[in-house]
Amino acid sequence: MPNEPSEPASTIRPGEVAIALPARADAGIFFIGTIRTPWQTRAECPKRGSPDGPICTIELDERWRAALTGLADHRRVQVLYWMHHARRDLVLQTPYRTGKTTGTFALRSPVRPNPIASAYVDLVAVTGTSIEVRGLDCLDGTPLVDLKPERTRDGEPGTR
Amino acid sequence: MPNEPSEPASTIRPGEVAIALPARADAGIFFIGTIRTPWQTRAECPKRGSPDGPICTIELDERWRAALTGLADHRRVQVLYWMHHARRDLVLQTPYRTGKTTGTFALRSPVRPNPIASAYVDLVAVTGTSIEVRGLDCLDGTPLVDLKPERTRDGEPGTR
Repeated sequence: MPNEPSEPASTIRPGEVAIALPARADAGIFFIGTIRTPWQTRAECPKRGSPDGPICTIELDERWRAALTGLADHRRVQVLYWMHHARRDLVLQTPYRTGKTTGTFALRSPVRPNPIASAYVDLVAVTGTSIEVRGLDCLDGTPLVDLKPERTRDGEPGTR
Repeated sequence: MPNEPSEPASTIRPGEVAIALPARADAGIFFIGTIRTPWQTRAECPKRGSPDGPICTIELDERWRAALTGLADHRRVQVLYWMHHARRDLVLQTPYRTGKTTGTFALRSPVRPNPIASAYVDLVAVTGTSIEVRGLDCLDGTPLVDLKPERTRDGEPGTR
């Protein structure tokens, strides 16, 4: 089924520990767009994005259009997105690949208190509110949280 | 005054454009800890963090303690935090330093729809729920959103 994780969110593996989440959130996230990729299930997603990978298209919501001004001058972009299928309550996890139980903050697993991913991608083109990039590895339909130019060694691309 | 930005949030500079934010948030963020730094105002904060900078202490909330298991094996950590004093409604900004009006997504300014910062820091020590790091540049009292090991070229530090 499109956009479903490859295993149910309720699966707990040996060694894993779930805790009670806080009763309420402390701040709100706006989903500002949608990421289009070729991958409909977690099993299909590459283990990590590659600059040789397919072009993926970030569709920004019209409301934020003007905020793209000047983005095309940058070659590398940091993308933050929301891993909307991930459970948030595991403090210890046992990754399938290693079988070794480890703390959530010692992993880059999607399962974490705030399921925000950070990826650096090559910017291919900006056309209206469509941003073409290479290097993503997320599910089709993933909500976009932020875009920033990659920080460079010789200067900050515009602090306030 | 501690924790206040160095200029009022309502300041709009020449060329800047504010829009109406969405009526409601799409997802909720849990603040999972607090970042302790020497800097009480934006004016005091360094322009960017440095590995030669002072040790800062991330105080993780007790609820997430077990999730630190194994973190001390990593030398470099990515820290996500919430820039809680930043306004969220500017799509065009005119940074003080350059005076050039640019789109929000072409800047790393704290002012953005979702004011999440990403920093890479050197891990100094993990003691209970206190994590000492070097390389931050944020205000004292900044809410913590996530900790992840830095991604390395030769392998992924634990996907799920």
